[in-house]
Amino acid sequence: MKSRNGSDLWPFFEPRTVAVLGSLKDGMGHGYWALKNMLDFGFTGRLYPVNPSCTEVLGMRAYQTVNEIADPVDLAVVITPPSTVPTIIEQCTRKGVKAAVIVSENFADAGGEGAKLQQQLVDITTQRGIRIVGPNTVGVFNAANGFTTIPYPFGYDKVRRGGIAYCSQTGIVLPQCQPIGDRGYPISKMCDVGNKCDVNEVDLLNYLAADKETKVAALHIEDVKNGRDFLNAARSFVDRKPLIIFKPARSEAGARASASHTGSLLVNDLIYDNAIRQAGVIRVNTWQEFWDIPKVFAYHSLPLGNRIAIISHSGGAGVVAADAAVESGLTISRYTDATLEKLARLSPRLARNPIDLGPPLSTVDDPMSLQEEVIATVLDDTNVDCATIILYVGTMAPASYIVQMFERLMKRVSKPLTVWFYGTKLSLIEDISRQLEGLRVPTYTDQETSVKALGALVRYSEFKRGIE
Amino acid sequence: MKSRNGSDLWPFFEPRTVAVLGSLKDGMGHGYWALKNMLDFGFTGRLYPVNPSCTEVLGMRAYQTVNEIADPVDLAVVITPPSTVPTIIEQCTRKGVKAAVIVSENFADAGGEGAKLQQQLVDITTQRGIRIVGPNTVGVFNAANGFTTIPYPFGYDKVRRGGIAYCSQTGIVLPQCQPIGDRGYPISKMCDVGNKCDVNEVDLLNYLAADKETKVAALHIEDVKNGRDFLNAARSFVDRKPLIIFKPARSEAGARASASHTGSLLVNDLIYDNAIRQAGVIRVNTWQEFWDIPKVFAYHSLPLGNRIAIISHSGGAGVVAADAAVESGLTISRYTDATLEKLARLSPRLARNPIDLGPPLSTVDDPMSLQEEVIATVLDDTNVDCATIILYVGTMAPASYIVQMFERLMKRVSKPLTVWFYGTKLSLIEDISRQLEGLRVPTYTDQETSVKALGALVRYSEFKRGIE
Repeated sequence: MKSRNGSDLWPFFEPRTVAVLGSLKDGMGHGYWALKNMLDFGFTGRLYPVNPSCTEVLGMRAYQTVNEIADPVDLAVVITPPSTVPTIIEQCTRKGVKAAVIVSENFADAGGEGAKLQQQLVDITTQRGIRIVGPNTVGVFNAANGFTTIPYPFGYDKVRRGGIAYCSQTGIVLPQCQPIGDRGYPISKMCDVGNKCDVNEVDLLNYLAADKETKVAALHIEDVKNGRDFLNAARSFVDRKPLIIFKPARSEAGARASASHTGSLLVNDLIYDNAIRQAGVIRVNTWQEFWDIPKVFAYHSLPLGNRIAIISHSGGAGVVAADAAVESGLTISRYTDATLEKLARLSPRLARNPIDLGPPLSTVDDPMSLQEEVIATVLDDTNVDCATIILYVGTMAPASYIVQMFERLMKRVSKPLTVWFYGTKLSLIEDISRQLEGLRVPTYTDQETSVKALGALVRYSEFKRGIE
Repeated sequence: MKSRNGSDLWPFFEPRTVAVLGSLKDGMGHGYWALKNMLDFGFTGRLYPVNPSCTEVLGMRAYQTVNEIADPVDLAVVITPPSTVPTIIEQCTRKGVKAAVIVSENFADAGGEGAKLQQQLVDITTQRGIRIVGPNTVGVFNAANGFTTIPYPFGYDKVRRGGIAYCSQTGIVLPQCQPIGDRGYPISKMCDVGNKCDVNEVDLLNYLAADKETKVAALHIEDVKNGRDFLNAARSFVDRKPLIIFKPARSEAGARASASHTGSLLVNDLIYDNAIRQAGVIRVNTWQEFWDIPKVFAYHSLPLGNRIAIISHSGGAGVVAADAAVESGLTISRYTDATLEKLARLSPRLARNPIDLGPPLSTVDDPMSLQEEVIATVLDDTNVDCATIILYVGTMAPASYIVQMFERLMKRVSKPLTVWFYGTKLSLIEDISRQLEGLRVPTYTDQETSVKALGALVRYSEFKRGIE
């Protein structure tokens, strides 16, 4: 059943026909919401609502069982009480359904009876070959075709299509819980593997390594069932694309908490840590890094060195950036003499790194031009491999001036850069940040992550060039 | 000239009469903006604009020189070209002005001529006793009386009065650069000491230790001129109140960058680090921690133990919280048998820590009541010293339900708790967070800091009880 990119996971992301089994109650049922979300996000595959106590939902005919559906079904989305699920999956295999996302919870995550039910699912998938994501998952989201199995309202219906695949074993990573729209993340695919009765992080890595939409993967993972398989998959993924891993359950208490909500086993964090770093994986340690570090990989090509330029409206922020740069393995660039001379001509205090734009900007007639000339001059410098830019946004100049400056800069240079805006109005900062994301300029909500992201980009670049 | 709380720093924060020397150009001049900001924030002291080329500004008479002012002047705010400043300060001393904030830059921060000018200021303050904040500062902000010297537009005119004093040696920490209003920080006083030609962090710590409005101080500092004085001041501050220090310029590159924008000396970070930790200071390492950790001290009394309860809508977030708790020196509480029994009665999967509210909430008729009962039960547990709560906010329930729940909870219990909201809409998260701040519930923009804040609170409590 392998197809497209050689993986049999395609029905999870690109199904042509989808049966949804669950409550279809208008505005309430999980099945209703899964269907409504697909419609809202523009999925154009054929949908088959299935519920024996319903005849119509969202203008579509509802079926009593999957058997009633005349067409072949690529994917079943199952959101029914746990005790009903094994029988439903059996029915699906008889109907020839290729894959199922089991959203229902209370399987291994609940222990006891639930663990037994999960074993039945393992037996079915092993014997019949139907591929299963879940149970205890919200499933998948594909930004390219609007397909999703998420059975909750989102509060928005647009996700920016882009190069990042986010995967996890918990629903909180998926877009019904995250400000994906407000932040403008560039998404390819998202998947919560849940209890992993079949499809796990190894399958996903193999699938995403070959996925043309995906430029970088960020994986949230609490446990790994087969460490050797995982490392092999990570290694071959990293050969092709950068891989960011956020593995909580670092502490024993965290691991126990993980075991209690996923039914998974305790593991030794140090073993992971060494192994994945040697495999060239970027390990991150907070949600914010997990969400925000992949963007540099999605937008930028790899730098050829580790020399950073820091340009700031604040001397104090420049110092913080310098610390973060050194702690991320970057070197503070020494500009070429030509650059230093040009900067000194613009204003004597500019000929240094970090550059504090604050004082000179307050003394010239056209601060916006000076600012752009300084940034362009530094980005052009052959001693600069990447740059982080720290700008006040507020009453000094309209946001559109800043956006237009970055439009021009991005046409001129191809070096990786990150931006941190600060100011008094959150809505203004968020708005200008989202506009810059549209220009493929990664923006950050904290200054340190803005620099760490460049550190991660450089580290991957060095790994690929065999420098580490 | 000592008065009020025994310090001669009172004219910087509570001047009765203020002369403002600088450009008074309508909507443009720094003097204009300093005056306008005082009016906007409701400062009721008497104001004396001073500029030889102006007769009136903002409906007030402008004076040619400070000498022309008939009344005694507590404070002069000086925002004139650097070469004019020593003469102006001399004039102020002759007039009997008690203190001056020198906002002007290009002194030691610029080197050369500027360093000589700064030395002149040092000589004047040493010989004449006039106290000086600056130069190269935006000065002070006092939330209690609306007094400020900040010469830039803010974009807002209300700051919540509360117990946190933020001090720094860089302007970015002051409220014209920060979303103080949007985030609802509870502020007592703020001060940027700039180049520290006179008033430095030691003076500020001594002043704030005695200041009744201030419950906790957060100090951003790049260099210290006299390490022994500083440590003594920190020790006696910590005897009375918690002190949070963010000291960038940790790396050599950071220290060099600091020297270039403040004119200060390089220092060895390790010496600080050991010394300030032994003094019971909480050291933080990012802007976000600097801003967000003090809140727990401003709102909460100190816990008597280190046992945390974690209550979350997401199993995955619970695991992250457990890691962060252990890494912050907290212990995951084992609830009493009575609590465990009660939780098990509510739903079998609740009798654990972290508690994952997600699955039970989706199966009951009144999830809001169940949620409140679980949180109240856990907070009442004698084995629980503090709690972190992680809630989805969005389509499930109106924000007002959540706010009202916390209103009731805060009346019922006095244990420290922190809250992290997640969801798809930034504006909704920001709005509900601000409402909770109004209830003295500290909210966080990232989950890890929400837990670290409790760790800091516990560490200070242990230090005070001699446990460390």
